[in-house]
Amino acid sequence: MIIPVKWSDEGVLMLDQRLLPTEEKWLTLKSYTEVADGIREMVVRGAPAIGVSAAYGIALGVKNFVGTNIADLVEEFDYISEVMGKTRPTAVNLFWAIERMRRTFDQAKTDGKSISDIKQTLIAEAKNIHDEDIESQRMIAEHGGKLLADNSTVLTHCNAGALATGGVWGTALGVIRGAVNQGKTIAVIADETRPYLQGARLTAWELQQDNIPVTLITDSMSGHLMKKGRVQAVVVGSDRIAANGDVANKIGTYMVAVLARQHNIPFYVAAPLSTVDLNCPTGEEIPIEERNTREVTHVQEIQLAPEGISVNNYAFDVTPNEFVDAIITEKGVARAPYTETLRRMFDE
Amino acid sequence: MIIPVKWSDEGVLMLDQRLLPTEEKWLTLKSYTEVADGIREMVVRGAPAIGVSAAYGIALGVKNFVGTNIADLVEEFDYISEVMGKTRPTAVNLFWAIERMRRTFDQAKTDGKSISDIKQTLIAEAKNIHDEDIESQRMIAEHGGKLLADNSTVLTHCNAGALATGGVWGTALGVIRGAVNQGKTIAVIADETRPYLQGARLTAWELQQDNIPVTLITDSMSGHLMKKGRVQAVVVGSDRIAANGDVANKIGTYMVAVLARQHNIPFYVAAPLSTVDLNCPTGEEIPIEERNTREVTHVQEIQLAPEGISVNNYAFDVTPNEFVDAIITEKGVARAPYTETLRRMFDE
Repeated sequence: MIIPVKWSDEGVLMLDQRLLPTEEKWLTLKSYTEVADGIREMVVRGAPAIGVSAAYGIALGVKNFVGTNIADLVEEFDYISEVMGKTRPTAVNLFWAIERMRRTFDQAKTDGKSISDIKQTLIAEAKNIHDEDIESQRMIAEHGGKLLADNSTVLTHCNAGALATGGVWGTALGVIRGAVNQGKTIAVIADETRPYLQGARLTAWELQQDNIPVTLITDSMSGHLMKKGRVQAVVVGSDRIAANGDVANKIGTYMVAVLARQHNIPFYVAAPLSTVDLNCPTGEEIPIEERNTREVTHVQEIQLAPEGISVNNYAFDVTPNEFVDAIITEKGVARAPYTETLRRMFDE
Repeated sequence: MIIPVKWSDEGVLMLDQRLLPTEEKWLTLKSYTEVADGIREMVVRGAPAIGVSAAYGIALGVKNFVGTNIADLVEEFDYISEVMGKTRPTAVNLFWAIERMRRTFDQAKTDGKSISDIKQTLIAEAKNIHDEDIESQRMIAEHGGKLLADNSTVLTHCNAGALATGGVWGTALGVIRGAVNQGKTIAVIADETRPYLQGARLTAWELQQDNIPVTLITDSMSGHLMKKGRVQAVVVGSDRIAANGDVANKIGTYMVAVLARQHNIPFYVAAPLSTVDLNCPTGEEIPIEERNTREVTHVQEIQLAPEGISVNNYAFDVTPNEFVDAIITEKGVARAPYTETLRRMFDE
């Protein structure tokens, strides 16, 4: 059972995903700035996992507050939240978790709690966020598993597994694990997911741990395999879903979605409602992170491209809702028109 | 001016493309088996370059024949051709070049030439093949350049440059160089082209040498850039074109073609007629090479995926003719219906 981020008395524990699959090393992050660095440097990645980590980071930052004045703590809380909010711009779960911790903080203040009690309340709330996240993935697995046919092969892009969430199930891999739990035989094709290779390094590793058959391909091969009839469904996660069902996810998702439509293969997105941003009307408004060009030009110390070459390194793209056959959340399976069906899930 | 394969008295000279862009090293291949290994191990790659190299390899093998009996030379010629023919199955230029060398060999025999004269005849014929290849690219550049608009950005996949041909122009990069020669301002977006990274290593390097602006992206980014309006045309090469215009090319080409159509971006294929296989009615009949899985799981000595993972490594895919807006050859620009227009070019 994979749980990539944990709370401990010594600090926030993170499985260093940069070293997988060749090394399993846990880091103990002893300050909120270390947690923020861990998110930014992708020790942990994946929208739900970023949300859980940010909540723990805020709890840790407040726990480490040494003052005795509540006004100083308010200032410190604002600053911690600001640092957390600047780590990764696309994953909306980050802002969702920060906002939820803020509401809890504000309530504890209003209730007149002591600084010591506020610290305990925030630790408890971060743990709640984590527990609820795992429970959400379990429900996503149950709902989504029903969409997959027995003896089918599912293609997934990037890693939307236990490693990308609070743990255990995952979102896209949750759907696959759900189908397997329902007694179905499922094989997986994993895109390697350049430049950061989350598919090769993380999805392949996770599924191997669970003995779910997985075949690794480069991102350039999925169209060929679809044309050969090798893919019966596509399931991916998401970093932010707009109110109209446009889906921001790892760069390359849009290409897979267009190819899936070309071959009449259903394209499913699995994500908790904390990934749905009702304040974002369409995908046009979702900020797309651009990362260091070295991720493209190098693999570790090996130089892949000539010196001084110009590079684009968009980390995400947006798949318009028309290519999305269903969005699987903990509340069930939403289908178009998403503006109505997603909002209804929040109201339930 | 890049000419990646050359004849010399010491043997066949090849620029070792496996070491680019960080090292420019020339190998001297002193036997036909070394040339065959060079093709198989991708010292040289790209359909036209493979054809030229195979011709030189055969000429070298015959030159090195030490017997005095013409019947033994016939047997040796057959064996050399067989070894050459087993190096890379998809590139039809390989078989085209072997066949052309065989016709020259047969004619020389029929003419009653001495073994010494046959050797000189075959060396001359291989040089002819090389010269004609360069001239073909020059014509492709001239015809294709006219299709590109001034101040446009062209996306290309893999390397169909001087390095992939007899040299100087290239096919897809020939079209770009042709447009530049015609006074147009052209920028290029180069897909890195996993797993072998011909785009990152070779296309980026070639264009940098020519001072043509080039931006490197991962294969997963082209859809996103098309959606943003950053691409005005796609130009690729080909390893084999079927009689109906179906195009085998580097894995991932099909995905780019489908995405280009989705965005109403013209998709052009540039290739000499030696790449067109009229004996192959459709793309279905083109054999698709599968290569060593280590190309996917490792970059040099760095392991990217877990031990024991299952991998698919298709080197090529087939783009159906319906996605191809034009095929640019040395004889001009063919458009659908390709079964008629391509055949007519052979008859001219």
